[in-house]
Amino acid sequence: MSSAQFSDSSLSTIWSCPQVPDLHDAALTTRIQHKLDFKTKPQGSLGVLEQQALRIASILGNESPQLLYPQMVVFAADHGLAAQGVSAYPVDVTWQMVENFLAGGAAVSVLSRQNGVALNVVDCGVARDFESREQEPNQPRLWRRKVAYGTADCSQGPAMTEQQCAMALRNGAELVKKLPGNALLLGEMGIANTSSASLLLARLCGEPIEAVTGVGTGLSSQGLERKIAVLKKVLDFHAGVKEPLAVLSAMGGLEIATMTGAVLQAAAERRVIVVDGFITTAAVLIASRLQPHVLQRCVYSHRSGEPGHVRMLAHLQAQPLLDWQLRLGEGSGAALAWPLLQSACTILNEMASFEAAGVSTKS
Amino acid sequence: MSSAQFSDSSLSTIWSCPQVPDLHDAALTTRIQHKLDFKTKPQGSLGVLEQQALRIASILGNESPQLLYPQMVVFAADHGLAAQGVSAYPVDVTWQMVENFLAGGAAVSVLSRQNGVALNVVDCGVARDFESREQEPNQPRLWRRKVAYGTADCSQGPAMTEQQCAMALRNGAELVKKLPGNALLLGEMGIANTSSASLLLARLCGEPIEAVTGVGTGLSSQGLERKIAVLKKVLDFHAGVKEPLAVLSAMGGLEIATMTGAVLQAAAERRVIVVDGFITTAAVLIASRLQPHVLQRCVYSHRSGEPGHVRMLAHLQAQPLLDWQLRLGEGSGAALAWPLLQSACTILNEMASFEAAGVSTKS
Repeated sequence: MSSAQFSDSSLSTIWSCPQVPDLHDAALTTRIQHKLDFKTKPQGSLGVLEQQALRIASILGNESPQLLYPQMVVFAADHGLAAQGVSAYPVDVTWQMVENFLAGGAAVSVLSRQNGVALNVVDCGVARDFESREQEPNQPRLWRRKVAYGTADCSQGPAMTEQQCAMALRNGAELVKKLPGNALLLGEMGIANTSSASLLLARLCGEPIEAVTGVGTGLSSQGLERKIAVLKKVLDFHAGVKEPLAVLSAMGGLEIATMTGAVLQAAAERRVIVVDGFITTAAVLIASRLQPHVLQRCVYSHRSGEPGHVRMLAHLQAQPLLDWQLRLGEGSGAALAWPLLQSACTILNEMASFEAAGVSTKS
Repeated sequence: MSSAQFSDSSLSTIWSCPQVPDLHDAALTTRIQHKLDFKTKPQGSLGVLEQQALRIASILGNESPQLLYPQMVVFAADHGLAAQGVSAYPVDVTWQMVENFLAGGAAVSVLSRQNGVALNVVDCGVARDFESREQEPNQPRLWRRKVAYGTADCSQGPAMTEQQCAMALRNGAELVKKLPGNALLLGEMGIANTSSASLLLARLCGEPIEAVTGVGTGLSSQGLERKIAVLKKVLDFHAGVKEPLAVLSAMGGLEIATMTGAVLQAAAERRVIVVDGFITTAAVLIASRLQPHVLQRCVYSHRSGEPGHVRMLAHLQAQPLLDWQLRLGEGSGAALAWPLLQSACTILNEMASFEAAGVSTKS
């Protein structure tokens, strides 16, 4: 039994995908590299920091890149599949954590605050209503972009309809247009969403589901076995679904769909996209299947402890900055790594050249 | 021919080593771990960040650790061995880079400034005099603690005398006593000092010199062969020297000796010691041979591209935070990683507990 309900070309009649051109600019690359090479240090001796400087300067199109008004956006939604017992935590944790983000007590809250990153939380499809609230300056902001009260259970049918998927993609793109600055940090919350990320990876990259399914928030080994069995059934149920947006609709989440729209719009606007863990990387994977040059705009904050994330990063040929066995999500890794990206700009903008500092060069 | 000139017990009659007690405190560890475990996240899901939080809280003896007035100290000195052509850069670069540190244009200058770390530069033995200068608040500070105009060429005799080594150790310890705050970030500058670090590692840990010698600031493969040949001769010349301070005197540098004294004093005072690359780790290695509990106070900012550093970290069972192929030294990696240590404290001090946030726990 296949649930293939629509093709990506049919969805494209109700949603217009942002276009993401190739960033390649040989003259700019040469100017940035020259600037790096004549700083007071042996060439290349700042390793990954220099690579990141080159990447950020290339994205922003400027050899003196300034990262401005960084925006963390935490996309939140519930998953019908949670009813199949794939998570260690009850579904109420999704809305409770949204409240915790807004109250300032979650990991992503405290790390964003420490590092001067503005925090936005988007209700993309949480199974509970949030009251509209005063938007005070410098406080976390709630955006209400609910498409549904969670997805449908994808072991029984498609997670979302074509119209719901299109609405989520549009919401994400429109939201980014309203954000200040030139950097988007990705975060997410949704009990059971590592299941969606594993399903998307398995289907889009042909990975065996048991190799890319992990304990998520902390399943027992028995719980992990159950999760894998459920995910196998889901893949069988949607056996005929192959195209990226159809896969997203069949087995994804509303937070992943909204994030995918946001990633595409941010890439089209040449914002620096700071990727967090497994779920945010899944949104980047989908976006890159629609517009491959999205990947040129991404910086990968960390490699998580979730086995699927390791494989997914390898498929994207991504070099993450930290290898810290983080497995919390929320955007915590992206917020944590933010000062490292500022440092990449700092060396380009503030270090002296050999000539200016009167330092001898290599003999 | 052996140059063994004194024993460590003879040096200890003219220098009194700071005593570094065991930090072990089971009750404190339990309190810190409990605090981490009841934050709003799955237990252990912040991986290395939680491990660092536990370490810093243990060093500072407080489950709500506050990192105060972090001090980067760049220890600078020249090396007589440079005359043997072991570096890609001329020796004048040592004093030129000291001027660059003070003028604010070097990597360690700009990264320290970005991250709110005060910059101190110590002339431990640079082959040129620096004028005393006004010490303006919030500007890099020069400490004049010159023991000699560089070490002697250790391929011809001991790098320093027993008295010089004792003076450098004392200078480092006394300097730390004058520094505010509770965190010491280690940096260094000295053309040819990767040679000293390789020599110390080879002798103290029994590593073959060719496995722990790298290109430093950027030698050609021919230059690297020459460097290895020179270092082999040095090791043969000092074949009888085995004890840590005797090895330091025979083949070390005045910046490494001063740093060793600083590390011991900082450890005795329970400061957090943030280690940078190969040369600063060599000082930690020597210090740990005198007082093993020094290692409990260390945080390792990065694993460098220098092969000796990888082996040295393994000997110390150190888990570095970044694996970025940095090979600049100066303290650039320590300054870069500083916000990550602040984040470790942030999660302990600012995250909400499940109870306080009204979030459900694992089912």
